[in-house]
Amino acid sequence: MRPEYTGRIERALEVLLPPATLAPERLHQAMRHATLDGGKRLRAQLVFATGRIFAVDAATLDAAAAAVELIHAYSLVHDDLPAMDDDSLRRGKPTVHVAFDEATAILAGDALQTLAFEALAGAGWPDAVKVECLGLLLSASGSKGMCGGQQLDMDAGGRQLRLSELQRLHAMKTGALIKASVLLAAAVAGAAENESSALAAFADDLGLAFQIQDDILDIESSSEQLGKSTGKDAAQGKSTYPALLGMDASKALLAELAARMRAHLAGFDGNADDLRALAEFAVLRKS
Amino acid sequence: MRPEYTGRIERALEVLLPPATLAPERLHQAMRHATLDGGKRLRAQLVFATGRIFAVDAATLDAAAAAVELIHAYSLVHDDLPAMDDDSLRRGKPTVHVAFDEATAILAGDALQTLAFEALAGAGWPDAVKVECLGLLLSASGSKGMCGGQQLDMDAGGRQLRLSELQRLHAMKTGALIKASVLLAAAVAGAAENESSALAAFADDLGLAFQIQDDILDIESSSEQLGKSTGKDAAQGKSTYPALLGMDASKALLAELAARMRAHLAGFDGNADDLRALAEFAVLRKS
Repeated sequence: MRPEYTGRIERALEVLLPPATLAPERLHQAMRHATLDGGKRLRAQLVFATGRIFAVDAATLDAAAAAVELIHAYSLVHDDLPAMDDDSLRRGKPTVHVAFDEATAILAGDALQTLAFEALAGAGWPDAVKVECLGLLLSASGSKGMCGGQQLDMDAGGRQLRLSELQRLHAMKTGALIKASVLLAAAVAGAAENESSALAAFADDLGLAFQIQDDILDIESSSEQLGKSTGKDAAQGKSTYPALLGMDASKALLAELAARMRAHLAGFDGNADDLRALAEFAVLRKS
Repeated sequence: MRPEYTGRIERALEVLLPPATLAPERLHQAMRHATLDGGKRLRAQLVFATGRIFAVDAATLDAAAAAVELIHAYSLVHDDLPAMDDDSLRRGKPTVHVAFDEATAILAGDALQTLAFEALAGAGWPDAVKVECLGLLLSASGSKGMCGGQQLDMDAGGRQLRLSELQRLHAMKTGALIKASVLLAAAVAGAAENESSALAAFADDLGLAFQIQDDILDIESSSEQLGKSTGKDAAQGKSTYPALLGMDASKALLAELAARMRAHLAGFDGNADDLRALAEFAVLRKS
């Protein structure tokens, strides 16, 4: 995790988000509340780290980094709603429907989704690159990607899923956007096809590793450490890797994924070290 | 209103929407419930009618027509939610959160928004046209357009608005998407700048006329005629043109808008007759 990227993405989001003083003020305040000053910015870090492999200037990637963070922020706002996960704490702050109200939270999520694609459509790239990036992020976000994964999560309710079902759920719900983060940077960089597929395989493993660690932290960490409610998976009877495989086997799978991620990046030189660091972070992080 | 366009947009939407048998089935069923077999398709009609001015083949406009109808459908699903307008009837059918559930309705709206932009990104147009069309529809949909207009509507609550506030609310909430429908077709057609601005002015008046007639019908029509709940504006203390101006002045303003719309189209020949018919429909419709 590079701290300079954290500042960079914050500034890029600040520029894209309409000011809180612009009407409708309440909506713009809620959009900013949901997006600014929070989170690990994993997806933006992935964009910048992937760009570095190809020596793409970070400024060229701001729009892509902002777009994936905006999609992520929108999904959190909607997932936190009472009709979904009913969460009141997020990134150490009250969730949007708690700080504002439900209608504003629904609309803020809606408008953040729109803004994500506006970021790409307004980027300083050739039209062909914009269209390719829009296609990547759109398909990662929609009913066959992130949004569909959240539906699978809702549909599962308290039912224990089979491992294959859980994998599909997470591949869609969180994996698709993580993969898009890497592929957007590759598209902007004009990466070769074999490079993009190695990066896609890396991102698939990273998404899975991140989810397994998320499940583990929900059990082993405190809400103060995480800045969000913990212990909710078990309370809601949600399927998790520790519940399905046991804690030891989950940690063993994490270690295996770490090895696989290293292998996927073996063909890249030292410029891929930022990406390697993110892989390590996914596995070792404590929050 | 051309009946052949109604069949055409229905088929275009049918092709774009994922099949109801594809996982997550519940989400795809809800997306189809919200979108297919319903409504006047005013926005799609506007796309095709505008395209006809420039002799653009209707097939070339399917993606644009589908995109505006998908954005419209998504906005209705979210606006109908209990936290917003709390409507149970829409186009003569139960609303999505009634027929399915709230979580599914939120996600179906989300995924319909994404699908709208996917339709444009996947159209058979040159990349420059795609980017232009995406820019138009994105800015019409977001916090400075439709979504922001719905926020203004929510923020108003039962408070009586001034005329200027009500105009801005509707220009954003419904006007922006109506204008985008016309401008998308103009963009695909490669219309000249003076043609696009005449069409934009026409669309501004059309959106306003449509809203005033909507307000009138909510008072003078029955829910059977409209296929949606009526009398809700007054019950919820919403600001409307009849409430602000009186019924007679509202109808006089409608007549004035009809004359203005004819003037905006004066520079176009008989190929604009479809658009003229839509203007007449906006003013005279009974449902």
